[in-house]
Amino acid sequence: MPNAQIGVYGLGTMGSALALNMAEHGFDVAVTNREVEWIGPFVEDAGVLGARIHPHDTLENFVQGLVTPRVILFMIPSGAPMDAMIEAVTPLLAPGDTIIDGGNANFHDTRRRAATLNEHDIHFVGMGVSGGEKGARFGPSMMVGGSAHSWQQLRPILREIAARFEGDPCVDHLGPDGAGHFVKTVHNGIEYADMQMIAEVYGLMRHGKALAPAEIGKIFEQWNEGALRSYLVEITGKALQYDDPETGHPMVDVIKDAAGQKGTGRWTVVEAVRMGQAANTIEAAVGARSWSSEKATRQAAEEILGGTCLALDLSRETLADAFLAARILAYAQGFRILDAAAQEYDWPLDFSRIAEIWRAGCIIRSALLDDISEAFQGELPAGQLILAPRFAQLLASSIPALREVVSGAVKGGHAVPALSAALAWYDTMRQGHGTANIIQAQRDFFGYHGFERLGQEGKHHGPWWD
Amino acid sequence: MPNAQIGVYGLGTMGSALALNMAEHGFDVAVTNREVEWIGPFVEDAGVLGARIHPHDTLENFVQGLVTPRVILFMIPSGAPMDAMIEAVTPLLAPGDTIIDGGNANFHDTRRRAATLNEHDIHFVGMGVSGGEKGARFGPSMMVGGSAHSWQQLRPILREIAARFEGDPCVDHLGPDGAGHFVKTVHNGIEYADMQMIAEVYGLMRHGKALAPAEIGKIFEQWNEGALRSYLVEITGKALQYDDPETGHPMVDVIKDAAGQKGTGRWTVVEAVRMGQAANTIEAAVGARSWSSEKATRQAAEEILGGTCLALDLSRETLADAFLAARILAYAQGFRILDAAAQEYDWPLDFSRIAEIWRAGCIIRSALLDDISEAFQGELPAGQLILAPRFAQLLASSIPALREVVSGAVKGGHAVPALSAALAWYDTMRQGHGTANIIQAQRDFFGYHGFERLGQEGKHHGPWWD
Repeated sequence: MPNAQIGVYGLGTMGSALALNMAEHGFDVAVTNREVEWIGPFVEDAGVLGARIHPHDTLENFVQGLVTPRVILFMIPSGAPMDAMIEAVTPLLAPGDTIIDGGNANFHDTRRRAATLNEHDIHFVGMGVSGGEKGARFGPSMMVGGSAHSWQQLRPILREIAARFEGDPCVDHLGPDGAGHFVKTVHNGIEYADMQMIAEVYGLMRHGKALAPAEIGKIFEQWNEGALRSYLVEITGKALQYDDPETGHPMVDVIKDAAGQKGTGRWTVVEAVRMGQAANTIEAAVGARSWSSEKATRQAAEEILGGTCLALDLSRETLADAFLAARILAYAQGFRILDAAAQEYDWPLDFSRIAEIWRAGCIIRSALLDDISEAFQGELPAGQLILAPRFAQLLASSIPALREVVSGAVKGGHAVPALSAALAWYDTMRQGHGTANIIQAQRDFFGYHGFERLGQEGKHHGPWWD
Repeated sequence: MPNAQIGVYGLGTMGSALALNMAEHGFDVAVTNREVEWIGPFVEDAGVLGARIHPHDTLENFVQGLVTPRVILFMIPSGAPMDAMIEAVTPLLAPGDTIIDGGNANFHDTRRRAATLNEHDIHFVGMGVSGGEKGARFGPSMMVGGSAHSWQQLRPILREIAARFEGDPCVDHLGPDGAGHFVKTVHNGIEYADMQMIAEVYGLMRHGKALAPAEIGKIFEQWNEGALRSYLVEITGKALQYDDPETGHPMVDVIKDAAGQKGTGRWTVVEAVRMGQAANTIEAAVGARSWSSEKATRQAAEEILGGTCLALDLSRETLADAFLAARILAYAQGFRILDAAAQEYDWPLDFSRIAEIWRAGCIIRSALLDDISEAFQGELPAGQLILAPRFAQLLASSIPALREVVSGAVKGGHAVPALSAALAWYDTMRQGHGTANIIQAQRDFFGYHGFERLGQEGKHHGPWWD
């Protein structure tokens, strides 16, 4: 007898946590896993929640254990495994059933899969899930892309298991096919930028002001009480105050300065560039991770080029304001990418709602998102977040600090790729008349490419061709 | 009777110029064009060179007019037109014939086409051609990717028509399939960066020092006599000294500050990011062009955020040194991308030779390329151009100027995305111990991603998990 309202395929960290979260909220969940030996221990560990969890040894039984129209959530590695599972499960499904990919898939793949399954009247949902294991277990932020039919099926379950911000569940239907995965990708791009800016600000305090990690941790702790309040600031403050049990040194001092990355940061940059958005702050953060992984090269470079950094005369208030300005600019770049994608793919993205569902459960949750959500509901000159009255005002008061920090850092030899990229973008955008006329003159000079004249339509050439 | 050593399909600007160049060097050239009505006028305009140019009205006759094994150069738009022509011409060819795509194709397409044609024993060459129309007519720089067999066929012709640097033809066989088009793509990426940095330096002189365009033109003219000597500096110096015949104003003042771009800059950035190279200076240049095209947005932003820039106290010597430092860093980033591609695709790229064939004919030709070519033949710590003795020395003397310029610009509100990106990369790379340990701590804290400890292999987790 089919009795499960949803099936979860894949009992890794995230799949297990989501299944337990659903069971806890009263849903009957069918579960299975490629390695069947994982299933028994998972159900045992579930304790009382096990009563609502229905394990199956085969894909066939798993599918037959679901009420129709079926809803199956796959929590497996993106790419080839997902394609293989779609191929395996499709013959077992009926028109109206929904398959969900809850991994960090590339939205191009999601669009392709949705189109293919659509031919069989099977609905494919790409769902971004943020918040890590804890989020998945106790309330993630979820970004859903798919059909209205699928959303009707999913809505009751997802609104129950989602994180809540002042009672409002952090989940919504954002658009068709790849919209959810795309929004999640850009969420991660903003996350990269925020993490990198925190690392840069840390570096300025550590190497420019000779503060100890624990002292810097306390500063982040204080910042987390004000305008910079956010999950990433909070955990940085905590992490900086831990000592290494092995050596007794500050924990961060024994961690290798070589950062890993998966696909989403790079995807954000690639899509931004492809759509002519060039989110340089996010790019800088992705770049900084790549360069960090070249530790041997950096060590060789330090021997040859010297690694000295000078002391900096920057107050912690100035650093906080600078970080706030740069954070605003990074978020704004993220929303510009979303806007470009909404136009390219004709997605009805609701930017205010996206900011809302990022306010709890996800890694970039921050005080700023409340302001962003409001800004997108109000006056928005030229469609730019940075021109919304509230943000124009915030920037007016914080940009001078960002100038002071970047100019000081640059002079003192401190690396601030993301902070300086944010400021360079800001200074480019606030110049109604920039310097690209020089580039146009060059292009016409060497390649007869032509240019527009100010206030005059059409293609013109320079007198160098006469 | 077949009598032409090479066929040129496509009599647009570049195809016409190359056909005339070949005829002038004594080669018999078959020509044809999709619009047959272009062919007659082209041959007429060729004057005495017309004797060596053999026009054909149909693809069949064109192919039959070539000695075997045949060599056909296509100078047509990249993308779908190239695929269509390959499909049309392949049935007319025989094993051992070579098709060349001389346009700015994406190297992924070139690799795909080469693999497909290889099944028919037809050789496909992707050839980057730089130098614009004048270069094509009187000596371009050419980057050839394809088989050794094709290179044997092409070598005698291309070495004759190429630009020469102190007698050495600026053309070579760089590797198989997509190698030539990839190197051309990166050439263009460096070109974007160089043009953007020139525009930024112009902006600092114009708005920070209140110099008139003609005065700035004279400064570029002087710079072109020294370490900054390059084609782009030369033509910028010239262009800045022209007045608009219509209004009498400096010509650059009536050119709209909205720069166009085709695909190669973006491709460079996308490939760099994909391969973990993150060439942020090139990225900044591509971004700056995108932002320049948002003129209406920038004008709205200026009204709200203010567009003031302060006067700068920077000598022209300081500006020259800063530009030299940033130019070195941009070139170095370009060669890093080439290195990454050589490893990924197993291409035997000879970086010294690439620098050599860029010394004449192409848009980025500059005095620096001689030094670069030499550096790649000598000691190269960690495989990094910036660590070669000559460049480490050049950077030691010029980086202080770049610091002064970027910190001054940033403080004064001038937009310097490319100059600041170059410096941020430099400062990141010269720190043997950076700040990515903070990012690793965060990633482990929120997602149990694990990290390496300094001097200790394996995956570790922080005490926050105990």
